[in-house]
Amino acid sequence: MIIVLKPNISRKDETAVLKEIRKLGYRPHVMRGVERIVIGAIGDERTHQTLETLTTWPQVESVMRVQKRYKLISREGHPANSNIDVRGHIIGGQKFQVMAGPCSVESEKQLLSTAEAVKAAGATILRGGAFKPRTSPYEFQGLGEKGLKLLAKARRETGLGIITELLSESHAEMVAEYADILQIGARNAQNFQLLIAAARTGKPVLLKRGLSMKIEEWLLAGEYVLSNNNCNLMFCERGIRTFETYTRNTLDLSTIPIIKAESHCPIVIDPSQGAGRADLVTAMCKGAVAMGADALLIEVHPNPAEAWSDGAQQVSLDGFKKLMEELKPFIAAAGRE
Amino acid sequence: MIIVLKPNISRKDETAVLKEIRKLGYRPHVMRGVERIVIGAIGDERTHQTLETLTTWPQVESVMRVQKRYKLISREGHPANSNIDVRGHIIGGQKFQVMAGPCSVESEKQLLSTAEAVKAAGATILRGGAFKPRTSPYEFQGLGEKGLKLLAKARRETGLGIITELLSESHAEMVAEYADILQIGARNAQNFQLLIAAARTGKPVLLKRGLSMKIEEWLLAGEYVLSNNNCNLMFCERGIRTFETYTRNTLDLSTIPIIKAESHCPIVIDPSQGAGRADLVTAMCKGAVAMGADALLIEVHPNPAEAWSDGAQQVSLDGFKKLMEELKPFIAAAGRE
Amino acid sequence: MIIVLKPNISRKDETAVLKEIRKLGYRPHVMRGVERIVIGAIGDERTHQTLETLTTWPQVESVMRVQKRYKLISREGHPANSNIDVRGHIIGGQKFQVMAGPCSVESEKQLLSTAEAVKAAGATILRGGAFKPRTSPYEFQGLGEKGLKLLAKARRETGLGIITELLSESHAEMVAEYADILQIGARNAQNFQLLIAAARTGKPVLLKRGLSMKIEEWLLAGEYVLSNNNCNLMFCERGIRTFETYTRNTLDLSTIPIIKAESHCPIVIDPSQGAGRADLVTAMCKGAVAMGADALLIEVHPNPAEAWSDGAQQVSLDGFKKLMEELKPFIAAAGRE
Amino acid sequence: MIIVLKPNISRKDETAVLKEIRKLGYRPHVMRGVERIVIGAIGDERTHQTLETLTTWPQVESVMRVQKRYKLISREGHPANSNIDVRGHIIGGQKFQVMAGPCSVESEKQLLSTAEAVKAAGATILRGGAFKPRTSPYEFQGLGEKGLKLLAKARRETGLGIITELLSESHAEMVAEYADILQIGARNAQNFQLLIAAARTGKPVLLKRGLSMKIEEWLLAGEYVLSNNNCNLMFCERGIRTFETYTRNTLDLSTIPIIKAESHCPIVIDPSQGAGRADLVTAMCKGAVAMGADALLIEVHPNPAEAWSDGAQQVSLDGFKKLMEELKPFIAAAGRE
Repeated sequence: MIIVLKPNISRKDETAVLKEIRKLGYRPHVMRGVERIVIGAIGDERTHQTLETLTTWPQVESVMRVQKRYKLISREGHPANSNIDVRGHIIGGQKFQVMAGPCSVESEKQLLSTAEAVKAAGATILRGGAFKPRTSPYEFQGLGEKGLKLLAKARRETGLGIITELLSESHAEMVAEYADILQIGARNAQNFQLLIAAARTGKPVLLKRGLSMKIEEWLLAGEYVLSNNNCNLMFCERGIRTFETYTRNTLDLSTIPIIKAESHCPIVIDPSQGAGRADLVTAMCKGAVAMGADALLIEVHPNPAEAWSDGAQQVSLDGFKKLMEELKPFIAAAGRE
Repeated sequence: MIIVLKPNISRKDETAVLKEIRKLGYRPHVMRGVERIVIGAIGDERTHQTLETLTTWPQVESVMRVQKRYKLISREGHPANSNIDVRGHIIGGQKFQVMAGPCSVESEKQLLSTAEAVKAAGATILRGGAFKPRTSPYEFQGLGEKGLKLLAKARRETGLGIITELLSESHAEMVAEYADILQIGARNAQNFQLLIAAARTGKPVLLKRGLSMKIEEWLLAGEYVLSNNNCNLMFCERGIRTFETYTRNTLDLSTIPIIKAESHCPIVIDPSQGAGRADLVTAMCKGAVAMGADALLIEVHPNPAEAWSDGAQQVSLDGFKKLMEELKPFIAAAGRE
Repeated sequence: MIIVLKPNISRKDETAVLKEIRKLGYRPHVMRGVERIVIGAIGDERTHQTLETLTTWPQVESVMRVQKRYKLISREGHPANSNIDVRGHIIGGQKFQVMAGPCSVESEKQLLSTAEAVKAAGATILRGGAFKPRTSPYEFQGLGEKGLKLLAKARRETGLGIITELLSESHAEMVAEYADILQIGARNAQNFQLLIAAARTGKPVLLKRGLSMKIEEWLLAGEYVLSNNNCNLMFCERGIRTFETYTRNTLDLSTIPIIKAESHCPIVIDPSQGAGRADLVTAMCKGAVAMGADALLIEVHPNPAEAWSDGAQQVSLDGFKKLMEELKPFIAAAGRE
Repeated sequence: MIIVLKPNISRKDETAVLKEIRKLGYRPHVMRGVERIVIGAIGDERTHQTLETLTTWPQVESVMRVQKRYKLISREGHPANSNIDVRGHIIGGQKFQVMAGPCSVESEKQLLSTAEAVKAAGATILRGGAFKPRTSPYEFQGLGEKGLKLLAKARRETGLGIITELLSESHAEMVAEYADILQIGARNAQNFQLLIAAARTGKPVLLKRGLSMKIEEWLLAGEYVLSNNNCNLMFCERGIRTFETYTRNTLDLSTIPIIKAESHCPIVIDPSQGAGRADLVTAMCKGAVAMGADALLIEVHPNPAEAWSDGAQQVSLDGFKKLMEELKPFIAAAGRE
């Protein structure tokens, strides 16, 4: 760590800081600059206590970390790309993958018609929420296990893999029984108990970025999954919260090259949540493909205007087919299949 | 709801919208404006499905809600202030309350010395984390039930009430056995399963504002507590995430008059998380008192530089005593005791 | 406009609102909903005074606009794409354009070597700052008119068009004498006097998005240019300010489809400011091309580590050549040349 | 500066960095840590070129500053509070000051009636906009010089000092002729040419914080005023832009203790812009007083519902009188007059 002292402090105040640094297990190294003294504290920042608490001392101006805080998730220690096998479909490999389906599972007819349509258009994984986190307690909360059973039925009939959201630690086993990928939603992205429960099922985990999560925090949340012995983690950008109100969220596509640089895990883009508007989804998908995303997660509904949740951002079955056609030249340009 | 159509749409497109509005259970009321047609859809927005999904239709420009989405939490239906009795200390009443204690429970000595000091200085409730949500899996995660037992011991010895964080649905019963108030942290503010579990214990709940939670979303999260038959809810502002990096968060003190206007529940301010810097805590507390907060939640530690978590924002025992002295004239000016 | 009244207000309070609406020139239209009265105020919102001020009245809950606030910039009244001719290079047409060059003009050698390299790689317009807005008064403020003369020399020698920033109303004539496009920087995006001065030179104007500018505000700032009789406006997204610190700004690529939907003006992407990191520029450019941008604005420097400003985000001459190669398949996939 | 190298780099790559550091005028100091090499570059960061450009080098992980970038504005070199004499009213001294008046000057009657009312209630300085920066070109742009003349008349009749906004470099002399304080608005807070023009008039300058301006950037913008030989600068917090939509802006009251800690200049709070809602102004003012602000800037209008600009945030004359009464105990508690 680097500790910057305030200008013009006494030798006694300096010595007190050095003593505390040693007490906390680091070896101090003093540099006398033009106006300020800077101390390098040498030691492993991940195994020792942080020195950031020294900022409460009046003679200390600031404390900066040197090491990265994440380890297993990091590309430093794992230079090759990881990829994840979901019923034979590889996420993070040469083939570009599309996950599609309704925001919520509403009925057998709604789900099966969507499943068949998205499969015909080229999707390989079916999304659909059985447990829904809703801003208001008066909104539809999902069909629960009945929804999971419908997802399983759709899988049997179409061969698509299944991704669905895990909302509660107490459901982890049940949801893992039906799903091929467990989705952790934006509102639970730092619900660490849920992350641990998901990791322990052994199923692949898709971790959405929290609404105001810094990339470092997202990587560290992913570290909770890997450090609980589950290396099948993928990140999913779904838009962050900003001041802009034209879109529901601001989709941060720069996360694609950043996650690829910092981590070995695949990156998935969710343009539906990202924009909150169906009319922007196609353009967002093209950008995601061109920038190197490994997969897309798209909301598709047979009749968006009557969807039980988030209708404004779901594309129709025809819209999805057209979208998949339009993506083809960009997938090729990106060197993917 | 209000539906605004795009300019120059055909009569047929207009009729289709009217038909759908009726199908979803509302009564449409058409107004022809200068450039656009505006439709008022009359019906209870909380019992019918939302019409916001109509924005996927090409002829619809925008859809706006008219009703407020919250109900039990709202001052409209409950004009008087609610207050909460915590072992005889009333939160939301005439007396201003201070909750204080360490970020994490670390040891008996640390906790008891803090408890005695904060009580002597005028606090009535002891805070202390036994389960800690930490950004990295490699950081101290709290003493768990051992920490809860130490809190209970501190209560026996000092008579202070106890507030501590609930992190997991599966701990709800255990934590409720020891605590007088269950704290829901910012990262779990939209973990609705946890909110429901907390509500069902029957214990008072302190709901922190999420890092990027709009006030409406915060009120709706509170609605999850009240609609699960627990009316002992208090809101706690602890700073929101903005672009500013000088402070860890931006403490939004405007929440005090806003929560008082919209809701009947008490509002508590946490200046420690809010600033992330001990040197700003005193000024923040003065502002909170002057603006009408019902209580403060302050992090206090016997030796902040060696705290196991969040040392930079904890004030020392002496600092806390001085702070409490400095607040007195402002509490009086605010007409509180 | 739509005026929502609070629940349970008296007939007298309602009448007072109706009277004021009429006084301000609108025709009121009352709808009685389930809980609230909603009033449609019919009249041209752009020629009458706003009714938003009614929110100061105790019986008024909220006031919402119906009309869009922009006019000349809007695609509603101008369905075809506008395009801008810069010395024979068309921005907003079939050919994809690249503007490239150093952040600051530093010397003849630096500028000419860059100009030749970017031309060879396919750029058609040379960027370079002669007047630099710097966060600190102690940082390099640009070469001023000497820089403009070097840009003019580079144009003579290479045939590239010139884009450079206009910082001050008092420089408008001078800068317009040398430049082919006047750039308005993010910090001046709502400096309306500067926008008017730029518009009045008759030169094409590139308007960067302000650091925290909503899209509606950006369009309205553009309206200042068009309403001052200059229709050669292009918008330039360069990243917005968010909570994220990994990148300097968050490049909001969703602005591409949004500006295309709302306006007829071309949209340019600046990935250098957008990311603030040279290693992310290539991926950002690919995304921008795929999503339908009309042009890119890229910072290129012969030796970024010794640049006098913003070195961290400038790509080298070799890096730029490689970037242009990598973009080709995406330009083709986007149906551009 | 501190330069952190990536793990496992070669000796040759390290040497190249050291050579460049020396070339740019710093003396390098190498520390070998557990995983990374850290280099302290010793030299005055304000007189040498920044080393941040080294981040373009592949072997460099990050570069951090050590020194503060501001100088004249800083409390380090000027420990005593500055104060500013405005026609005998001292801002930054023992007496708490209130500046009040309409958003825009609309007419003689409107301005004079407001001036008399705010004076009677205890204000000492009259605010009023003659040149208005408006989001849309179709909104009222202010009365211009006619407005300035009315302000001067109000001063003659009441003895109040005058504060009004400077919008354009070309108006600097004219506005300075009429005004006692020049206000730089949020949208121009980094319009450095305007700041320089304002500074050079010699009049006191009130610098509002930009909508998304970091505190460091605000201090550096202030540095533009002081470094142009004008030491009569005061900062004015008026709310920042965040994701919250309940209020127009988020008033960041933590700026009061922060500006007091970092700088010797007075700090003024504008609760009207800060909240954008008249009903929140009183609470905001109480908080500002309690936290140590030197002055308030409050929008007051004889008939807010018919104001030509920003009616929603202006308080009525009666409302202002009541507000001033309610502030008295807090001014006393803060040890002010």
